[in-house]
Amino acid sequence: MPRHLYRITQLAREEGLKSLDVAVTIGHHPATLLAAALPASYGTSEFDIANRLLGGSLKLTQCEHVDALAPADAELVLEGKLRLDQNVTEGPFVDLSGTFDVQRQQPVIELVGVMRREDYVYHGLLPSGSEHRLLMGMPREPRIWEYVRNVVPNVRGVNMTVGGMGWLHCVVSFEKFREGDPKNVLMAIFAAHPSLKHAIVVDSDIDPYDMQQVEWAIATRFKGDEDILLVPGARVSSLDPAGDQEKELGCKVGIDATRPMFKDPMGFKRAEIPISDKLKEILDKHN
Amino acid sequence: MPRHLYRITQLAREEGLKSLDVAVTIGHHPATLLAAALPASYGTSEFDIANRLLGGSLKLTQCEHVDALAPADAELVLEGKLRLDQNVTEGPFVDLSGTFDVQRQQPVIELVGVMRREDYVYHGLLPSGSEHRLLMGMPREPRIWEYVRNVVPNVRGVNMTVGGMGWLHCVVSFEKFREGDPKNVLMAIFAAHPSLKHAIVVDSDIDPYDMQQVEWAIATRFKGDEDILLVPGARVSSLDPAGDQEKELGCKVGIDATRPMFKDPMGFKRAEIPISDKLKEILDKHN
Amino acid sequence: MPRHLYRITQLAREEGLKSLDVAVTIGHHPATLLAAALPASYGTSEFDIANRLLGGSLKLTQCEHVDALAPADAELVLEGKLRLDQNVTEGPFVDLSGTFDVQRQQPVIELVGVMRREDYVYHGLLPSGSEHRLLMGMPREPRIWEYVRNVVPNVRGVNMTVGGMGWLHCVVSFEKFREGDPKNVLMAIFAAHPSLKHAIVVDSDIDPYDMQQVEWAIATRFKGDEDILLVPGARVSSLDPAGDQEKELGCKVGIDATRPMFKDPMGFKRAEIPISDKLKEILDKHN
Amino acid sequence: MPRHLYRITQLAREEGLKSLDVAVTIGHHPATLLAAALPASYGTSEFDIANRLLGGSLKLTQCEHVDALAPADAELVLEGKLRLDQNVTEGPFVDLSGTFDVQRQQPVIELVGVMRREDYVYHGLLPSGSEHRLLMGMPREPRIWEYVRNVVPNVRGVNMTVGGMGWLHCVVSFEKFREGDPKNVLMAIFAAHPSLKHAIVVDSDIDPYDMQQVEWAIATRFKGDEDILLVPGARVSSLDPAGDQEKELGCKVGIDATRPMFKDPMGFKRAEIPISDKLKEILDKHN
Amino acid sequence: MPRHLYRITQLAREEGLKSLDVAVTIGHHPATLLAAALPASYGTSEFDIANRLLGGSLKLTQCEHVDALAPADAELVLEGKLRLDQNVTEGPFVDLSGTFDVQRQQPVIELVGVMRREDYVYHGLLPSGSEHRLLMGMPREPRIWEYVRNVVPNVRGVNMTVGGMGWLHCVVSFEKFREGDPKNVLMAIFAAHPSLKHAIVVDSDIDPYDMQQVEWAIATRFKGDEDILLVPGARVSSLDPAGDQEKELGCKVGIDATRPMFKDPMGFKRAEIPISDKLKEILDKHN
Amino acid sequence: MPRHLYRITQLAREEGLKSLDVAVTIGHHPATLLAAALPASYGTSEFDIANRLLGGSLKLTQCEHVDALAPADAELVLEGKLRLDQNVTEGPFVDLSGTFDVQRQQPVIELVGVMRREDYVYHGLLPSGSEHRLLMGMPREPRIWEYVRNVVPNVRGVNMTVGGMGWLHCVVSFEKFREGDPKNVLMAIFAAHPSLKHAIVVDSDIDPYDMQQVEWAIATRFKGDEDILLVPGARVSSLDPAGDQEKELGCKVGIDATRPMFKDPMGFKRAEIPISDKLKEILDKHN
Repeated sequence: MPRHLYRITQLAREEGLKSLDVAVTIGHHPATLLAAALPASYGTSEFDIANRLLGGSLKLTQCEHVDALAPADAELVLEGKLRLDQNVTEGPFVDLSGTFDVQRQQPVIELVGVMRREDYVYHGLLPSGSEHRLLMGMPREPRIWEYVRNVVPNVRGVNMTVGGMGWLHCVVSFEKFREGDPKNVLMAIFAAHPSLKHAIVVDSDIDPYDMQQVEWAIATRFKGDEDILLVPGARVSSLDPAGDQEKELGCKVGIDATRPMFKDPMGFKRAEIPISDKLKEILDKHN
Repeated sequence: MPRHLYRITQLAREEGLKSLDVAVTIGHHPATLLAAALPASYGTSEFDIANRLLGGSLKLTQCEHVDALAPADAELVLEGKLRLDQNVTEGPFVDLSGTFDVQRQQPVIELVGVMRREDYVYHGLLPSGSEHRLLMGMPREPRIWEYVRNVVPNVRGVNMTVGGMGWLHCVVSFEKFREGDPKNVLMAIFAAHPSLKHAIVVDSDIDPYDMQQVEWAIATRFKGDEDILLVPGARVSSLDPAGDQEKELGCKVGIDATRPMFKDPMGFKRAEIPISDKLKEILDKHN
Repeated sequence: MPRHLYRITQLAREEGLKSLDVAVTIGHHPATLLAAALPASYGTSEFDIANRLLGGSLKLTQCEHVDALAPADAELVLEGKLRLDQNVTEGPFVDLSGTFDVQRQQPVIELVGVMRREDYVYHGLLPSGSEHRLLMGMPREPRIWEYVRNVVPNVRGVNMTVGGMGWLHCVVSFEKFREGDPKNVLMAIFAAHPSLKHAIVVDSDIDPYDMQQVEWAIATRFKGDEDILLVPGARVSSLDPAGDQEKELGCKVGIDATRPMFKDPMGFKRAEIPISDKLKEILDKHN
Repeated sequence: MPRHLYRITQLAREEGLKSLDVAVTIGHHPATLLAAALPASYGTSEFDIANRLLGGSLKLTQCEHVDALAPADAELVLEGKLRLDQNVTEGPFVDLSGTFDVQRQQPVIELVGVMRREDYVYHGLLPSGSEHRLLMGMPREPRIWEYVRNVVPNVRGVNMTVGGMGWLHCVVSFEKFREGDPKNVLMAIFAAHPSLKHAIVVDSDIDPYDMQQVEWAIATRFKGDEDILLVPGARVSSLDPAGDQEKELGCKVGIDATRPMFKDPMGFKRAEIPISDKLKEILDKHN
Repeated sequence: MPRHLYRITQLAREEGLKSLDVAVTIGHHPATLLAAALPASYGTSEFDIANRLLGGSLKLTQCEHVDALAPADAELVLEGKLRLDQNVTEGPFVDLSGTFDVQRQQPVIELVGVMRREDYVYHGLLPSGSEHRLLMGMPREPRIWEYVRNVVPNVRGVNMTVGGMGWLHCVVSFEKFREGDPKNVLMAIFAAHPSLKHAIVVDSDIDPYDMQQVEWAIATRFKGDEDILLVPGARVSSLDPAGDQEKELGCKVGIDATRPMFKDPMGFKRAEIPISDKLKEILDKHN
Repeated sequence: MPRHLYRITQLAREEGLKSLDVAVTIGHHPATLLAAALPASYGTSEFDIANRLLGGSLKLTQCEHVDALAPADAELVLEGKLRLDQNVTEGPFVDLSGTFDVQRQQPVIELVGVMRREDYVYHGLLPSGSEHRLLMGMPREPRIWEYVRNVVPNVRGVNMTVGGMGWLHCVVSFEKFREGDPKNVLMAIFAAHPSLKHAIVVDSDIDPYDMQQVEWAIATRFKGDEDILLVPGARVSSLDPAGDQEKELGCKVGIDATRPMFKDPMGFKRAEIPISDKLKEILDKHN
């Protein structure tokens, strides 16, 4: 794929190199995984990002058989030489969407050594599994948060959902001040993450990570004829097989599942189980 | 509420009675609960239905202090006299939607006896909890199944979802034969359960009870501009606070999350983890 | 066409037969025609249905030249042998829609005898004529009636219109109780007869069989922006040449021509010619 | 109503007159009726129009008891004095729409004489009957014809339908040359008769006066999602009780029931019964 | 192009002529230009129209080298012979839309003489320039005015805009009496000029020729959801490259930028700079 | 209005002050005007911003009669004391929209001195004039530019139009890469400036400041049914009198006037007048 490693191999080939030393690290701290998944610009070291996330505590170690660095606390490090003169057919692998990607010609990595902890754990990151989806979606949430805050002051949370593969669906919970805020928030979400397909906005009493609560908000606060934003002919991620994947063209849908401000809020309030002061005291003691 | 018991009390009052003997049973077989929740027509005994569901094994017992029958395997039976000459303010209780219902004037039940098992379990059916929602929704599923089958031959499943409170949301999974089937199926669902607000139809490879799979189907198979059925100005349940609750008027929305038939099905297929014959053999042995 | 007779000829060919004895009956009781037009399941005898409709009075007679039965009161019976070893090009015939059907390869019937009344009447059932349309449409009306009754209690009438060829258009008259009932009724109609294209619902003071009254209801009670149900991308009969006949895909339209309940009913009432008591007496005597 | 007679009575009152001589004519030539129904401008004599329609053969006669003229061939002429100094409550009468109009204060006509044929026929023009509707609708058809001809060259017919009360519905049949013509024709119809509510356009092989043929065209040539023109918030006749009668505001609907030009015309052709040359000869002789 | 000159050359060829005498006049009175641009019917002399516009003062002069007439006040007259036996490739020229037209085979004009004023001005009419656009658009405005007047009594102005190339866009200013008038006016505009693509209607306080005022009216009086008329699938000019130019099919859009009548007019009134009586007096003296 | 000066007067009142020294400057550098119009946060000195815009060359001067600073190059400085103990009725003034604002109670400024240039120019900034509108709109353009760049890489220009009062209308010109980009750009514009009502996007060959070119792009590249984004029920500026000004609720409209990418670009290219090399040389010399 035409990303950073691809660009580095191009440069290496131009220098006349035959191979590149690489370390494939398996099983490490989530901050390192997250840093690796971030869409950092070329030239920024993902190790620096991981170190920042870890409060400066990242330790790297020099590989034994290749000229490469790896996180010191990794479970398993495969030391290899990425061959620049040889491609093989790879895949088909499952991609983020959970469907099979096309087969590709990719260079071979020749393993020349292994470093490992004594009872190392092999951390298999399942393609399109929740972990894969979270690592793709979480880095998109801060910009969405920022754009939404340009429209409304108080944001409770942003969730690139697992069911939407961390890429196509987003739920945002915020405090509504004006009747027309939700439509503006929906457009801000779509502006912040142009690949998004569907977005749902809910009031701040709804937890955007609890999809059953989100469904309840749709059931009780959404009016299908007024609270929907349909945007056909928009650019959507090429990961969406329902759209025109070649043109990256599809229809975006925004759902406003916030309660109307001019209606009595009591009719929309989620009942809670009342508790006695005594019980509250006990519960608080154990929290 | 103007249901069967209300009608019976009316008749009793006309006969000049002062009270009715009743048994309130707590903690019994789910089949009995389900029978009690069914919208049977007046004159049909819910005990008969429960007995049918239990394959004829329902046993009733005569109450000790009142002239009433109760399931013999109940944990706790409250024997009481429903006073026909006295109403008190009841509630506000939480209704199915999870919001507070209005207060009502209701007759008092005067307890005159109790029958119980030795170490009886008190089965508290939480208002608007999952159990409450399942008992409301499940009895609606057979008619939906039947109406959908009038339109398409193979139905995989019908789910009145918990997030939709067992009343406002329905997911149906079926085998699609013609491109236009889903819209017809959506109308059949709305025809079968006129209180419904939102319906989703998915292909038969999607489990309608797994909401994360359903969300995945929406993310990858739904086109917002073509696959939506909007029906404003329709009768919707008065339980929907977003609609006009007095006129029972709202907007129904149908979502067609089935894959388009003219596109290559491979692009929509959910990848599965392949297993070796050996592994399969082991797994089968333990199933 | 792959219907019952087709299936019987298939079985006969498998048995090694060269021909099938058949009786073609022309000119008989409408109940027999209706029974023949009903979509009965394979195995059900249409003679049994006709007999039921006639209150048990159907009489059959044994043919003279072939091994077949025919209604005893028929005007004309053509006795023939349906050749299983020979097909000829048939048509093009006019089909229900009033347009020309494609030509088809069909087996020949060799006539070997005729039975007839003395001054027999030849009853020519004109393809796509009113009689043809009524025979196709009427058998669809009971299920529509039943489905509509699941939504609203009082149905006045169901008319598969002649102008809609007894197949594509339906008018239903019912008593409206809630403002949103008509949309639900429209979906029930489409669910009951999936081939339908257009449906109109009217109040119970409108006769669904009087198309001028129906047009008057549309002129005075229909609001084009609120009272219409548009369902594009639905399955419609392949008889509709405006749709995609291969995919059986088209757009259904529902028209709600009932009066709004919140407006003064007087503004919608059809004026009637008042008559004196004397005149009424005279008229009643002669009715 | 503020029309011509109203204006004349105003002038007469200003002149200090107490009454106006009038002749109420009942039972005359349709051309005279039509002339009376035409929206001629003030100052144009309706007798002149009738005379023109009759090819100059209209004869008037001087009334015997009042100073007024009446058509000489009338069945019955009521000679009266319209009192300018006295109003009475009139009605409620049935208006064009078939519903009851409001009661109004109107001047009295005092009858002072009668002229009649020997066996005169009383021609009762039933309010909202077909005759009333035709007399209202027919005068609107020429301008519609003219406006449509500005858009397409060949118009077959214009029908202000009886079901639409001669005022709210119009069917136009024309020869379609370009795929987009029908929408332009629909707007031309609405421009020509601003009170119109619904319009239908059909191909020139459809007779616009045969409503069953028109319904057949809708069944077989109309696509609900593409061939409809919805114009909410437009001025509609105050006769439409479904609209906002005070603001004369409603939704216009145009229906394009012409066949698509890019599809094979054979699929849309109405089959006709073929006749032999001999039969044609006989038929022609008797026509 | 199949217009009048084309028809004349056809007739001349049928007569066996080799060439036609023509005069190409450059630089004359705008009335003559306008007359030449009018869509007069074949047989009507454009010189007659120009003469009428000039109040009868048009003078023609006989050409010196060819048998043709030319306006006597022209700056430059090219006298030529249009060769009927020879075509050459012409263009590509810029057409009204400002894009390049296709190349065409056209006859040659052989110049045989020139008449000119002493210091003649060469009037170059730039293709798609404002002058070209005004000459195309202005002749369409009277019919639009007339059709609009059939719907509302007071029209302030009709502008076939320069930005819309004098052909695709029209702004009409009129006095609004009823809330629904603007939609009817929009349809009247589209009916009057079937090639039109977009139309805007404004209140009579807005100058339809001042596009900044028109934009201001859209900013402050237009509601995008209620005040828009969308007509897809209509016939539009083949000059619109966004549409289907072969089928002349496109989407018309009407914009109602009039203020709602039920709102306080003060909120919509354009503030004007107040002037003292003294200043007014001075300004009036100099106007 | 509850802006910065209001907050300062509040603080001063709390301190027990009777008046505030102020300098009202009339006639200065546009950079100072622009800085004053910027929505800087409280605490940021607008003089600092102006100085930054002027490259550090802003000079301030101490007022002679009050304790305040004013730009040294101003034409006229009114030195005053803003009375904190006295309010008078102000207005009605014309606001940005060109309509009259409500009257307000505002404090009085008592003038105590004047500083001026010898032949000073009085710079009257006309309310709702172009200058007023530019000063309001220009500060909004950078964020719009930034948000659009998050969606597409190359932006040519952003114009908060004068016709849209520098507040309600925006035109953005950008280089289109994917068919669906324009819809995403429109949402980015609305997200960047939540008060916006209408937005238009054009290709990069269109100058967004030339409204006649923008209208031409709409005439030739916009398809009303596909290229429009309608967002009813959104928050819009309270300056829009057509919306619900109290709830700040209205309908946003986005117009995509870019050419479709799958059509031949030649059909959309604006013809230009070709010039000879010689002419180009001359023109270049004089530029």
